[in-house]
Amino acid sequence: MKKIAITGVSGFVAGHFLDYLYNNNIECEVLGLDRDTPKMDLSKYGDIIKIHFSVIDLMDKSMLRSIFLDFRPEYVLHLAAFSSVAYSWKYPSESFTNNSNIFLNLIEVIREVVPSCRVLSVGSSEEYGNVSQEDLPLREDQPIKPISPYAVARVSQELMSKVYVKAYGMQVILTRSFNHIGPRQDDRFVVPSFINRIIDIKKAGKTEGVIETGDTTIIRDFVDVRDVVRAYYMLLMEGTPGEIYNICSGKGVKLIDLIEIISKTVGVKIQTKVNTELIRPDDNKEIVGSPYKIETEIGWNSEIELKDTIKDMILERLG
Amino acid sequence: MKKIAITGVSGFVAGHFLDYLYNNNIECEVLGLDRDTPKMDLSKYGDIIKIHFSVIDLMDKSMLRSIFLDFRPEYVLHLAAFSSVAYSWKYPSESFTNNSNIFLNLIEVIREVVPSCRVLSVGSSEEYGNVSQEDLPLREDQPIKPISPYAVARVSQELMSKVYVKAYGMQVILTRSFNHIGPRQDDRFVVPSFINRIIDIKKAGKTEGVIETGDTTIIRDFVDVRDVVRAYYMLLMEGTPGEIYNICSGKGVKLIDLIEIISKTVGVKIQTKVNTELIRPDDNKEIVGSPYKIETEIGWNSEIELKDTIKDMILERLG
Repeated sequence: MKKIAITGVSGFVAGHFLDYLYNNNIECEVLGLDRDTPKMDLSKYGDIIKIHFSVIDLMDKSMLRSIFLDFRPEYVLHLAAFSSVAYSWKYPSESFTNNSNIFLNLIEVIREVVPSCRVLSVGSSEEYGNVSQEDLPLREDQPIKPISPYAVARVSQELMSKVYVKAYGMQVILTRSFNHIGPRQDDRFVVPSFINRIIDIKKAGKTEGVIETGDTTIIRDFVDVRDVVRAYYMLLMEGTPGEIYNICSGKGVKLIDLIEIISKTVGVKIQTKVNTELIRPDDNKEIVGSPYKIETEIGWNSEIELKDTIKDMILERLG
Repeated sequence: MKKIAITGVSGFVAGHFLDYLYNNNIECEVLGLDRDTPKMDLSKYGDIIKIHFSVIDLMDKSMLRSIFLDFRPEYVLHLAAFSSVAYSWKYPSESFTNNSNIFLNLIEVIREVVPSCRVLSVGSSEEYGNVSQEDLPLREDQPIKPISPYAVARVSQELMSKVYVKAYGMQVILTRSFNHIGPRQDDRFVVPSFINRIIDIKKAGKTEGVIETGDTTIIRDFVDVRDVVRAYYMLLMEGTPGEIYNICSGKGVKLIDLIEIISKTVGVKIQTKVNTELIRPDDNKEIVGSPYKIETEIGWNSEIELKDTIKDMILERLG
């Protein structure tokens, strides 16, 4: 029975990862780590997944060491992170050091306790930075030019992982995950926030309304979280240590078009009003990835269409 | 009168930087910051440089803030660092976080207190990593592949600096400094360590001897610290924010040939014996830089020949 440790287990992605294990009858023992107790009911996985849970701040290296000495994971899915780009603009230094420190504590404890453990280090499409049109879709060997403190932290984690793989023979597999969306995503993120405000207009009995946005002309590559967790599982099992894999749909969608899909599905007419305070300094205009490497080397494809993801996200809110 | 703050003022490079200011009659006010009291006599600069000194651990951001609120530097030369690659292999996580944290504290305090201050962020040739022969001599736009925890920290600092320049309009100028050597360098570094052991053999009255070394086939680009500090001053004054400048001689020297120069100058015959414990995991085979950018854009050239540097280092020990 596989022994998998998951950091950030109380978060959005981890819940879907557990669902994936459960739905695919992957019997395993899971050690969930998080600062916060999971909101979801962990007992529901009981007949397939044996789940342990520990409240831990990953800044506490000695506690992590004793937990790992006890559990001895064979796989680690490292999801814990301060993953908000907006937060990183407000608190660049805190965002950077927290992300770096928790990763370094984790990798050092693994090196010491379970050096042959396979680790999935989750990175971000933000690492690519401000790229020009002819670089799209982005490939993993593209030169990277990170333009936010969050992105720099992610690049550092990637570079550090490569050092650990090359110098210490560790088994760290790397992703650059593009914008993932789906049911149960935190309301602070951009797509749930759009959906909530558009549903509110509908619930107020109106047929049209206005929402405040940042720059709606930016283009992103959205991928359903349920596709993402399948990629994470496949990479944990079969990814090559030291290699980076884009996890993306390969399709670029303008935020204004995404709003259009939401408003059509909800059934209201929406106008957007740009609030300049919501525009991030020096944001990327367009990020679209190439899933070619993971498709050809691992056999993963994104399967869920954006409109279906949006529909599921609206449905969970309506009832 | 220019107001210059220097972090790591008690170190090897800072002492030479102060000498440079003094020898060139550059009247200025200097705030020196360090965890350790300088060993050199600061009063000797008295008629040209007005020096203040504060003992500070740069991890203490609030203390740094109050010092900068008081001094309000126009220039910051950031030399403080855990700059040992060997230490970074022993304590990868500590090396990385300490270097990152002190840089982030510094840059955040500058952003808050003196945002238009010009900052020289000192990086390292180690950032280039393991490059192939056809990439030599290394140019600043060369893709970088750092292979030590120390090098990753330096790359992170560089990437973070670019974010601060682009997003916040700060004036951070970047270097990739190659191996600098010269009088007063700490004995733990490779060249002083060779010189000391070879002089010891001479002092013991022998005409030949054996020294233990790591890999003596590696090739490095050595540049005299007195040339380096001149480059730092020129870049502080005239470098373009966000731009990276190699500081190097452009000439590669094999460690075994360096040992040969030392032993000839000292006048003893030396055999080397490789101690595998002194070989670093995954070290770079060859690092030689191109000084083309700083030569053409800033007008700096390395002037002191390696044999003269070595002679000066031997003389300070004998005399």
